[in-house]
Amino acid sequence: MNKNIGKNHFNVVKEEGISYPKGFKAAGINCGIRQIKKDLALIYSSELASAGAVYTQNKFKAAPLWVTEENMVRSGGKLQAILINSGVANACTGEQGLKDAWETVKYVSEGLKIKEEYVAVTSTGKIGEFLPMNKMKSGVEEAIERLSANGGADAADAILTTDTRKKEIAINFLLNGQEVRIGGIAKGSGMIHPNMATMLAFITTDAAIESRLLQDALTEVIGKTFNMVTVDGDTSTNDMVIVLANGLAGNHAIVEKDEYYYKFRDALYQVTEYLAKEIARDGEGATKLIEVEVKNALTDIDAGKIAKAVAGSLLVKAAIYGHDPNWGRIFAAAGYSGAQIDVDRIDLFVKEKIVSDGQPLPFSKEEVRKYLEESAEIKIIIDLKIGSGEAIAWGCDLTHEYVNINTKYN
Amino acid sequence: MNKNIGKNHFNVVKEEGISYPKGFKAAGINCGIRQIKKDLALIYSSELASAGAVYTQNKFKAAPLWVTEENMVRSGGKLQAILINSGVANACTGEQGLKDAWETVKYVSEGLKIKEEYVAVTSTGKIGEFLPMNKMKSGVEEAIERLSANGGADAADAILTTDTRKKEIAINFLLNGQEVRIGGIAKGSGMIHPNMATMLAFITTDAAIESRLLQDALTEVIGKTFNMVTVDGDTSTNDMVIVLANGLAGNHAIVEKDEYYYKFRDALYQVTEYLAKEIARDGEGATKLIEVEVKNALTDIDAGKIAKAVAGSLLVKAAIYGHDPNWGRIFAAAGYSGAQIDVDRIDLFVKEKIVSDGQPLPFSKEEVRKYLEESAEIKIIIDLKIGSGEAIAWGCDLTHEYVNINTKYN
Repeated sequence: MNKNIGKNHFNVVKEEGISYPKGFKAAGINCGIRQIKKDLALIYSSELASAGAVYTQNKFKAAPLWVTEENMVRSGGKLQAILINSGVANACTGEQGLKDAWETVKYVSEGLKIKEEYVAVTSTGKIGEFLPMNKMKSGVEEAIERLSANGGADAADAILTTDTRKKEIAINFLLNGQEVRIGGIAKGSGMIHPNMATMLAFITTDAAIESRLLQDALTEVIGKTFNMVTVDGDTSTNDMVIVLANGLAGNHAIVEKDEYYYKFRDALYQVTEYLAKEIARDGEGATKLIEVEVKNALTDIDAGKIAKAVAGSLLVKAAIYGHDPNWGRIFAAAGYSGAQIDVDRIDLFVKEKIVSDGQPLPFSKEEVRKYLEESAEIKIIIDLKIGSGEAIAWGCDLTHEYVNINTKYN
Repeated sequence: MNKNIGKNHFNVVKEEGISYPKGFKAAGINCGIRQIKKDLALIYSSELASAGAVYTQNKFKAAPLWVTEENMVRSGGKLQAILINSGVANACTGEQGLKDAWETVKYVSEGLKIKEEYVAVTSTGKIGEFLPMNKMKSGVEEAIERLSANGGADAADAILTTDTRKKEIAINFLLNGQEVRIGGIAKGSGMIHPNMATMLAFITTDAAIESRLLQDALTEVIGKTFNMVTVDGDTSTNDMVIVLANGLAGNHAIVEKDEYYYKFRDALYQVTEYLAKEIARDGEGATKLIEVEVKNALTDIDAGKIAKAVAGSLLVKAAIYGHDPNWGRIFAAAGYSGAQIDVDRIDLFVKEKIVSDGQPLPFSKEEVRKYLEESAEIKIIIDLKIGSGEAIAWGCDLTHEYVNINTKYN
């Protein structure tokens, strides 16, 4: 693992996310699955693209993920189009669900005149319901007609469920003298927890890079970004991240782990880190982003365990919602994370140093309370002082609105 | 493991919990840690008792638990008194906290004229605050004065924090012709999660049983009761369960795992199961008890993983609060539990069979919704049909009131 990941910073551009890189078009429409909201997104590359993908580890992996995984194997890691619908998850739908997912692949393949194995499909929404195939068929036709180099924002909108806002980003940078562009969109909100693909994200780039290296870069950055986000500890049946790289930037293709690979990986990191934080910030009912940084743990793995346990603790999340500087809850969560801790060495910072060598300092409760109340981003730093492991995790506060949203979901 | 645990049922009596077995007295008073509520409990046996104990696995184990553990080692598993305060947890309090805990042991030892090593102490409440030692000193004196064979209910009250009601039970049964009594009290509410001691519980019995066998019985029943309760996934720094057996029932002492041992163990199971369910039912803000039974998993361990994942899923808990028969959330939780599942064989019952062989049945949503709305105990049964592993876990719904309670805790 390269410790320097994320140390480069790249230029963020205003242009729309996934349709910003050369050769990519996108569309987002309403095909009638949902009443008004856009519910069908299509992403298309004019050239066959190298692809990398990560799938949920939930045992009830949804039908479209099986289909996409099989297509990725058949094509040797190449894709040219991604179809995403929201509203119906096509999960726990058995044989019929698989048949329906293959049928939607066919609609896209025939409409775009590309091989079936170059099509990825995915769904998000309610589990146990079947795709309305007539709506999917006419929807795919309309989405293909509407494909546009300005369609990224519509696609970013169409993949959302209980999210309150679009999550998209685009960056550019020079790779061996050529401008390379990366765009990304994501969908988060509920059922989000580390150690899984955690949500939906689609990333496009015009970089030229081999599928194998693209997959390596994706796997590495996901471990430090999407997998470090927790909203409610639940993991969806449908989570997936896909990256497409069509090579139109004209950079000398990345075929080994040289400096260009690492620069590209860092750019990919910036895109996924941005989207991961946006997902945490927009967690169901959230009013605040919580960032937990763990330093000097025995190992990176231990640091990750603590960061995720603290960011995911309901009691910590509720205390932050209530602006209550209850540091004991942070320690309780660290303590059950399973990581090694020397309870007599640990330091804790929330705005200021409030615990030193495991002992509470006489910190200003009013100052910290004010910080918790007024800041949109709450930063918790835990310094274990027993090694050099480090990790950052992101979460959000637990609010009445989370309960409102999840007592009824349609 | 004896599969037949819990198949015996014993007579529940109305008498007060922990002071019901012969030779036990208890008291519960307000010593000034909290404003009005009782905050100090004392349990005392006229005879030195065999003792078993289980402690939290949180790395920030509170000072009194270290002290109690050391006393249990010094005394060879014998205890005569337990002191419990609520309001201040004496956790994350370093050297001073340990010194204070030892000091409270001394108060009890001197007041009752028993060896220090026969005294257990524990605390529950806010982390990071020191015990008010002057109040503890005078409180112990008053509690000793108030010790009574009718004091169980007061002690049950004094150990509570955000609990809304006392949790106590007493049973009796014949063991080799002699009446044996068991009493128990517990405290739960927040910071409750499986795989740890999970909360405070104190059990008294007049049975004659060796410490070693008492510990075995306790460990076994806790694995199937207290460790199968989840309220919010957080595990306290202070969780502990202690059982005292003073031998005054006059039964022939249990010194091996014979039929009397197993009968006693089953009686202990009934007491801990009752208290565990009471804890789940009275989880912070809860309106319903959720019981998740998993059958025919590959192993008991797998069954336990699924039962706990479903009972602990925020999305399942919120759906039940909203009376929403959203079975997809149950499957999603089972799917990320880590247990083996054949997604094409699984059956699910919520009032009626709603999924068969992984396929949704055309169940009556209105009937199930009515069941979720009107029943105080919601039963979810998952039949995996791939082995003979089984487990039951208990949880509660996630409500607005949970958020209310935990945004501010004093």
